[in-house]
Amino acid sequence: MLRTHNCGELNLSNKGQEVTIAGWVQRSRDKGTLLWVDLRDRYGITQLFFDETSSADLIKQARTLGREFVVQVKGTVIERESKNLNIPTGEIELKVSSMNVLNEAITPPFTIEDETDGGDELRMKYRYLDLRRNAVRKNLELRHRLAIETRNYLDSLNFLEVETPVLIKSTPEGARDFVVPSRMNDGQFYALPQSPQTFKQLLMVSGFDRYYQIVKCFRDEDLRADRQPEFTQIDCEMSFVEQEDILNTFEGLIKHLFKKSKGIEIPALARMTYADAMRYYGNDKPDTRFDMKFAYLKDSEADSSMWKGNGEGGAFKVFEEAELIAGICAKGAASYTRKQLDELTDFVKRPQVGATGLVYARYNEDGTIKSSVDKFFTEADLKNWANLFGAEKGDLMLILAGPTDKTVKALSELRLEMGTRLGLRDKNTFSCLWVLDFPLLEWNEGDPNLLASLAGRWHAKHHPFTSPKPEDIDLLKTNPGAVRANAYDMVINGVEIGGGSIRIHNKDLQAQMFEILGFTKEEAQKQFGFLMNAFEFGAPPHGGLAFGFDRLCSLFGGSDSIRDFIAFPKNNSGRDVMIDSPSEISDEQLNELSINVVRKEKA
Amino acid sequence: MLRTHNCGELNLSNKGQEVTIAGWVQRSRDKGTLLWVDLRDRYGITQLFFDETSSADLIKQARTLGREFVVQVKGTVIERESKNLNIPTGEIELKVSSMNVLNEAITPPFTIEDETDGGDELRMKYRYLDLRRNAVRKNLELRHRLAIETRNYLDSLNFLEVETPVLIKSTPEGARDFVVPSRMNDGQFYALPQSPQTFKQLLMVSGFDRYYQIVKCFRDEDLRADRQPEFTQIDCEMSFVEQEDILNTFEGLIKHLFKKSKGIEIPALARMTYADAMRYYGNDKPDTRFDMKFAYLKDSEADSSMWKGNGEGGAFKVFEEAELIAGICAKGAASYTRKQLDELTDFVKRPQVGATGLVYARYNEDGTIKSSVDKFFTEADLKNWANLFGAEKGDLMLILAGPTDKTVKALSELRLEMGTRLGLRDKNTFSCLWVLDFPLLEWNEGDPNLLASLAGRWHAKHHPFTSPKPEDIDLLKTNPGAVRANAYDMVINGVEIGGGSIRIHNKDLQAQMFEILGFTKEEAQKQFGFLMNAFEFGAPPHGGLAFGFDRLCSLFGGSDSIRDFIAFPKNNSGRDVMIDSPSEISDEQLNELSINVVRKEKA
Repeated sequence: MLRTHNCGELNLSNKGQEVTIAGWVQRSRDKGTLLWVDLRDRYGITQLFFDETSSADLIKQARTLGREFVVQVKGTVIERESKNLNIPTGEIELKVSSMNVLNEAITPPFTIEDETDGGDELRMKYRYLDLRRNAVRKNLELRHRLAIETRNYLDSLNFLEVETPVLIKSTPEGARDFVVPSRMNDGQFYALPQSPQTFKQLLMVSGFDRYYQIVKCFRDEDLRADRQPEFTQIDCEMSFVEQEDILNTFEGLIKHLFKKSKGIEIPALARMTYADAMRYYGNDKPDTRFDMKFAYLKDSEADSSMWKGNGEGGAFKVFEEAELIAGICAKGAASYTRKQLDELTDFVKRPQVGATGLVYARYNEDGTIKSSVDKFFTEADLKNWANLFGAEKGDLMLILAGPTDKTVKALSELRLEMGTRLGLRDKNTFSCLWVLDFPLLEWNEGDPNLLASLAGRWHAKHHPFTSPKPEDIDLLKTNPGAVRANAYDMVINGVEIGGGSIRIHNKDLQAQMFEILGFTKEEAQKQFGFLMNAFEFGAPPHGGLAFGFDRLCSLFGGSDSIRDFIAFPKNNSGRDVMIDSPSEISDEQLNELSINVVRKEKA
Repeated sequence: MLRTHNCGELNLSNKGQEVTIAGWVQRSRDKGTLLWVDLRDRYGITQLFFDETSSADLIKQARTLGREFVVQVKGTVIERESKNLNIPTGEIELKVSSMNVLNEAITPPFTIEDETDGGDELRMKYRYLDLRRNAVRKNLELRHRLAIETRNYLDSLNFLEVETPVLIKSTPEGARDFVVPSRMNDGQFYALPQSPQTFKQLLMVSGFDRYYQIVKCFRDEDLRADRQPEFTQIDCEMSFVEQEDILNTFEGLIKHLFKKSKGIEIPALARMTYADAMRYYGNDKPDTRFDMKFAYLKDSEADSSMWKGNGEGGAFKVFEEAELIAGICAKGAASYTRKQLDELTDFVKRPQVGATGLVYARYNEDGTIKSSVDKFFTEADLKNWANLFGAEKGDLMLILAGPTDKTVKALSELRLEMGTRLGLRDKNTFSCLWVLDFPLLEWNEGDPNLLASLAGRWHAKHHPFTSPKPEDIDLLKTNPGAVRANAYDMVINGVEIGGGSIRIHNKDLQAQMFEILGFTKEEAQKQFGFLMNAFEFGAPPHGGLAFGFDRLCSLFGGSDSIRDFIAFPKNNSGRDVMIDSPSEISDEQLNELSINVVRKEKA
């Protein structure tokens, strides 16, 4: 080794020892006869020291060191005069006796500090320098630790990690596949897996009983801010289980991870049906760090007295015409200024939120209620609202009205915004939840992330292998949209961390499912015949789930961005700007693969 | 859970307990009033028992069970009358009280037994049934265990597992890349990694210090019997190290794996230079479970008295004309019959071996030596051979002659064949070896696994990032073929298990290397500019290696075939015959990807 110790481990117990360390120059301080250099590696920083007893050549050499030079130094561990008790090596320094510059460095394009001066684009282009920053490296250390602990936990429960293939077959009924032309099979293509779903089910048919894999998956989507074309899942499957068994097993995993990586004991996970999540939070992944449930002034159940006011202004047209009127109670926000309320109105009108306006009602400390619709509603009307909202003195009621889906979505966004503004979304608080009883199907009006040819069909909410609830199977023929699935998501702080389902293990039910999804018998057989055939040879009841590992890491790391937890991420156009990929390939390669590039006319 | 216990854990300590188990019907025995059914799962087999006290309905139900039906049974653990002490559950059986058929099964196309009646092709098509066989499942359990132990060992040494990207950039200077058309970047392609080589080096530039990954890699090769287009590596890299540090670290890993998975303490690994491996074994991955070194009758060093015989027949033309004459001494094989010697002659003449004939000399127990070339050589000549070969009474000398490279290769094959015939290649004996000082470069005459445009150039023996030995750098300009690399392979039982090198960490040397490999400056910059630029910002000395994980598993499992250790392997045409992939994709997909398929004229 080019060192006897790393830069993070020397302390007073090493005093007097002659050691060799190596690392990067973080900074130098030159005070004439005294010179200090901070040497950095992954493990820490050790201060090098030169003084008038150092040889003139050595001092001269030390003065040539620039930021990020790689050096090897030999010296004696001495006690520092002015100690830095914030770092483990802060009580000592190394009195250097010889130095060897292992590599020079030109000036990096941004500073290698926790708070760097480098913008996003520059940091991605020089990602290898960005990764030198403590903050980024710590994210990847956390990722490593979570992976190790996941494997240890699952291994202790007899789960086997089995690698499933990456070169598989295109089955574009879900999102778009990435495909790989086969040189040896002219005109044919492999596809990269969107998940190892069918393979893990086959492993259950094989009797593997408990399977897991931390595995790369691929989805050719139009990328949103926080999606990557390649992402990592903790993928799991179990046989001879019911939903309850899976919930318990993976609740155990998440508790283990919180315990081992953050020292937090989390309580038993709350459970909520999809229907309740939508009704009370307008969201199938509610952030339950705070309550602020929806209250409904107008819907199929609410009494019309709630929205038909008794004020002087007569009927309030916006409410009259609205399909849905619902609101939230923001505790202690009655003191919001006009400016703050205007900000909220602007917020709900943003195209991503999509409301047309915001109604508010302040429950003042003096017991009066003042609203933005006082013309239409009497104080008694507003007291009724307050009762419905559970609002008390000092609270602010915020109300949206409009078409059902749009209003629910907008109110959910507003709820999250208010949670943030009221400081209810602390990154160090974790609220974990199972959302249960998802619908089996949803109607595809034309999802841009699916092939256009799939529009105007039922689409599997989870995937085509999810089992309907036995008591809802009869509805498959009469009212497919009402069928609930044995499907579940784990949600933490409003983020969907994982999800899964009990699977179909019966060939006929699986065939029926494909039929509902608009597959002809031939298409179903061609794409998924191997799975349906496998079900004829003794398939056990089974189910499983998958966690989004990138997302899990970012949640544990207290960040909103998964990119910070991926060593070499791609940008929103799916490009790796560091290696400049994707790129053109040679005609020789295209020719061997029997494909041509068709240049599209730019619109 | 649909069970209280699995099929492998019940024993006399559970006697009298009421339990529920579930699994697959392995076989039934029906003796009229008595009926036994073996129920199997991953953990073992438990015998179910029915007798005259069982209800008529239950007996009737039990009689309908076919092979591989999936059933759940409830019953009481009782002591068996006739015990089977070969299995952990062999002292008990389950007196069944109720039974639930969870899924029926049609008759499998082959028997689910260790010795199955299914041929290779059938087993691959129904791989999910093949995986039910104990023998295959145990292979994958071993693989899981080796992966866990690898991670634990490396984790304990501060290695971080970092996931590198799968969608990268085509750099077809090595083997052929698999490529992936980018929908969002018209006419551009990603490539799948042949190894994470450049990324792990960048991680060293980033100061990650110690990296590993168990990772899928991809190579679009014409497949030989034991290659797969996707394969798994244990990929590792370390900073601030010299070759010796890497050898020690990974010698430690292999010892750990032998200890943990097989309970074997292996001794310190032997070391051999590439030059010696080629000279004494004709092979850069010699099987050192047995000695049988090459002896040279004619080469640049041997004395002509060895091959110019003093026999009555005059000069032996084959030897006269041969560039090289070399042989091996097969201990105790002097008693080989004429038939056995003919078989050996046939063996060396096979096109894969490539010799034109075989000369032998028996050192008989009576002290005489009889050879197939007695006409040309006297007994005294043959005694000289015996001295050179280290042959003793009872030994057989086998000699090949011809062009150097061809003869060395053929003799190496003959040596392995004799090792096998003499029982010297026991699968439960492990001989581990480092081969060192590989050549840096080899001349590419037209390797079919490389793009045709790369023929007639120097090619990197290991890869273009391997560091030449400092003392050989001057030869780069004058005699590139003679330059030795700081490169090493780990060889076990004649199988290359892993290999690596100390890397170049200097931009100029890396640029020189690309120049020698025939890259223009522009090509080098376009393909590897990111790496050479990274070297300017303070790259530490670093090196690493990668183990072939599939191969490692098969070696530990005592098999010659890696396919047995891959859950869903591909056949020699790169096809997955179970899912029938690769396959054609839709015009809609091709269109979105801006590519066309060009149908080639069949020759």
